[in-house]
Amino acid sequence: MDELKKYIRSVPDFPKPGVNFYDLTTLFADPVGFKMALDKMEDFIRSRKTEKILGIESRGFIFGAALADRLNLPFIVARKKGKLPYKTIAEDYALEYGTASLEIHADAVSPGERVVIVDDLIATGGTLVAACKLIERLKGEVAGIACLIGLVFFPFADKLAGYDVNYLISYDSE
Amino acid sequence: MDELKKYIRSVPDFPKPGVNFYDLTTLFADPVGFKMALDKMEDFIRSRKTEKILGIESRGFIFGAALADRLNLPFIVARKKGKLPYKTIAEDYALEYGTASLEIHADAVSPGERVVIVDDLIATGGTLVAACKLIERLKGEVAGIACLIGLVFFPFADKLAGYDVNYLISYDSE
Repeated sequence: MDELKKYIRSVPDFPKPGVNFYDLTTLFADPVGFKMALDKMEDFIRSRKTEKILGIESRGFIFGAALADRLNLPFIVARKKGKLPYKTIAEDYALEYGTASLEIHADAVSPGERVVIVDDLIATGGTLVAACKLIERLKGEVAGIACLIGLVFFPFADKLAGYDVNYLISYDSE
Repeated sequence: MDELKKYIRSVPDFPKPGVNFYDLTTLFADPVGFKMALDKMEDFIRSRKTEKILGIESRGFIFGAALADRLNLPFIVARKKGKLPYKTIAEDYALEYGTASLEIHADAVSPGERVVIVDDLIATGGTLVAACKLIERLKGEVAGIACLIGLVFFPFADKLAGYDVNYLISYDSE
């Protein structure tokens, strides 16, 4: 799916010098590119006998909500700490400096439900591991992980071993 | 559209005592309710000869991205300060204590483009006014504002006078 790369803008030195940021706003702003990405993610999600889609705040919401609407599936959300109003469960994950916490509502997943996690990009995989743990603590099943981009110079494959990870584009250097 | 209210969970005392929070995660998790809301927002957006949809971070992304996919329209995003990687323009808006800043990319809107703003809820209208100003600074036209909920005990109608504001549900007290 390298043709998708032409819809993505590379912004050098964001958020800090030496880092190349893959800007998806140019993809979202082009219905041809956005639909091309959604079509492929939809195929994957259909293939996984998915019962629920979990979107990760906040670019995961953009893909996840459109996919849930297309597939007529319940859409649930994982948010940063303190944003969800009802009873929640939380998992910490490592940032470059310190940790952050991801939350879902405690009633978001029922035992045995097959949930696909949707996000924009896989880097270290830390957020996705936290999302998997949250689903599994509620006794749901992680049916798959669907992202647009895999930054394959990070060792996320080890971290996510055992999960069905799907991404449409990879970049092998910053 | 009061039938939509049954999909929304009221959470008392969030984010602080005395405030009633309208939790939309139960709507998103029910494809019947979510589609009912999207259908009505879609009707409004079609009626406004819309050329672009602007979603406001982050619940506006959930409605806006699904609507852009349905309507085959470009989807652009307004985010909190410091999140967008490319050249941006910003507008401050008042919070209960202090101010916050909303940004869009400087190339997100072209002169003359008709943009509908999508968000989940209208309270004071401060964020929406900032979004209108951002579109207008780029010489776009605010073709309308589409939200799910209007908290009509706030005086947002005055603040947004002159804009075509559409919401599906209203609540008249906290």
